[in-house]
Amino acid sequence: MVRGMAITNPDCSLCAMRELPAIWRDARLRVIHAADPDYPGFVRVIWLEHVREMTDLAREDQEHCFRVLLVVEQTLRDLLRPEKINLASLGNQVPHLHWHVIPRFADDAHFPDPVWAARRRAGVPRPLALDLLGARLREVFGA
Amino acid sequence: MVRGMAITNPDCSLCAMRELPAIWRDARLRVIHAADPDYPGFVRVIWLEHVREMTDLAREDQEHCFRVLLVVEQTLRDLLRPEKINLASLGNQVPHLHWHVIPRFADDAHFPDPVWAARRRAGVPRPLALDLLGARLREVFGA
Repeated sequence: MVRGMAITNPDCSLCAMRELPAIWRDARLRVIHAADPDYPGFVRVIWLEHVREMTDLAREDQEHCFRVLLVVEQTLRDLLRPEKINLASLGNQVPHLHWHVIPRFADDAHFPDPVWAARRRAGVPRPLALDLLGARLREVFGA
Repeated sequence: MVRGMAITNPDCSLCAMRELPAIWRDARLRVIHAADPDYPGFVRVIWLEHVREMTDLAREDQEHCFRVLLVVEQTLRDLLRPEKINLASLGNQVPHLHWHVIPRFADDAHFPDPVWAARRRAGVPRPLALDLLGARLREVFGA
């Protein structure tokens, strides 16, 4: 991976959306709200370049990605007090490195199953102060 | 988190299994084979102490956990050449920090869905040289 080269894939939906508004972004990644009505606190951390796996990144980029992921996790814990945080990098359908950060609650639509399993009940709306998440990321990482 | 204290939870199934044989272990975590017949390369990285979230770990422990996770990912990629690697820390049912590392193939039982979705087809057996994964972890981290 040569840093500074904007590697995009014309067939990739995440590459196509890379300039869309984000909660926060820097030169390497963007943090967006998943806008999932069942999971108001569902956030995605998306690498900007079209990279497939964490192990395709340079070590310093891996570390940056994990640091951002954990600041998102901690801030969502502080804001929402979830029962559990789910972190997942799957990408089977869109093989462009992105992480799902999903605050889970005992009364959410799938608990205690993963959000990709069969639905168990209606979800419960929860307010999320996204501006506070963006502010926290700016405070820690700048940009 | 005070290092060196063995924090276990008597009601936790992962705490109960912490002394079982592993592919590799050190003082902080163990790497085990999930023994899932659909997913021969499915490996778990399990923190030894009963900790809930990544953000409950000290920073150096977070980094160690991620380094082990990525050596497992790279070694499974080298050994199996999967279509995609799935990484997930969920823990809704067993809230003791553990990571699923799942090599995915276009002909596997759930592809391109997550392994927690409805099954699409029978899985395909694939040999996995677990001793090579253990050897690689010893080479990188000792123990």
